Amino acid sequence: MAQPEIEQFKVSTRHFNRIMIAIDDDDFISSRFAFDYACTVAKMYSVPLAIASVMETGDLNVFQSLDPETLAAHRQDVANDLNAYVEKAKAFGILDVVPLIGEGKPGKVIVDEMVPQFKPDLIVVGSETHKGARHQTIGSVAAFVTRYAPCTVIVVRDPSSSPKPTDEPSARQ
Amino acid sequence: MAQPEIEQFKVSTRHFNRIMIAIDDDDFISSRFAFDYACTVAKMYSVPLAIASVMETGDLNVFQSLDPETLAAHRQDVANDLNAYVEKAKAFGILDVVPLIGEGKPGKVIVDEMVPQFKPDLIVVGSETHKGARHQTIGSVAAFVTRYAPCTVIVVRDPSSSPKPTDEPSARQ
Repeated sequence: MAQPEIEQFKVSTRHFNRIMIAIDDDDFISSRFAFDYACTVAKMYSVPLAIASVMETGDLNVFQSLDPETLAAHRQDVANDLNAYVEKAKAFGILDVVPLIGEGKPGKVIVDEMVPQFKPDLIVVGSETHKGARHQTIGSVAAFVTRYAPCTVIVVRDPSSSPKPTDEPSARQ
Repeated sequence: MAQPEIEQFKVSTRHFNRIMIAIDDDDFISSRFAFDYACTVAKMYSVPLAIASVMETGDLNVFQSLDPETLAAHRQDVANDLNAYVEKAKAFGILDVVPLIGEGKPGKVIVDEMVPQFKPDLIVVGSETHKGARHQTIGSVAAFVTRYAPCTVIVVRDPSSSPKPTDEPSARQ
């Protein structure tokens, strides 16, 4: 006999009602697969999709971040990219697309500002595939969001970026 | 203008072909929501579902792990629970259900033994809701699998276990 709560359990169909995709403006490759998946689910269930992009202010060095022109140009680039993603989602057939733009530490801005605002029940993030890294690693934003978000999180990996057989996993711990 | 690769990008529908759910035999609550979601997706796409359960050998103290009777009884309990999950998935309408049973450190057994064997493109894990913990944390198995699995991973959170508003996230880092 199994544990009583397992014996009595009946599987229920579950789906998501509000989806948020976190775009990494500097990593199109890992964002792309995550974006495909987020759009697929939002379209399938006809639910709102928020597209979140955070301008990582730590990206700019001190000189640049003091230069208002450089900062304004960088802000405009991030906004243009976000608008392009919004148009792609609409062209795919998603009716309710919500752009969210922020500045700061991406994981923290997503969890502390954007999630309370949009209230997603699913967050989609890419895994940040670092070219040349020996081991595939989860990015710091994906790790932060997976750990601290109050809802379900899916970390989408490019199916073609699987670790090579020479990456011996047993050496890891 | 957005970055050229974003401008040229066209969203594609993506779905999963082989799903693995990792059950925590000691945490029915967090396994339950993950199991619901894994079964929903496997049924929707009519794809195989592997149900993975790892007997955590570190759970038993040295005396117990030297006692063959205790060990055999614990093995039988884990196998009975796994069989019950298999029956639940079949009753829900999934035709191809593959039970996987292992022993050792759960994250490592899943990533190093079960994933190469079943070759999932999606792994579903629960988030381990620790009762009484001030902050909701991702469990160590979920963290390990999310970090080291070669495929997409979804960490499913019980929608009713969201952190309370008194849990001030800005205190975290």
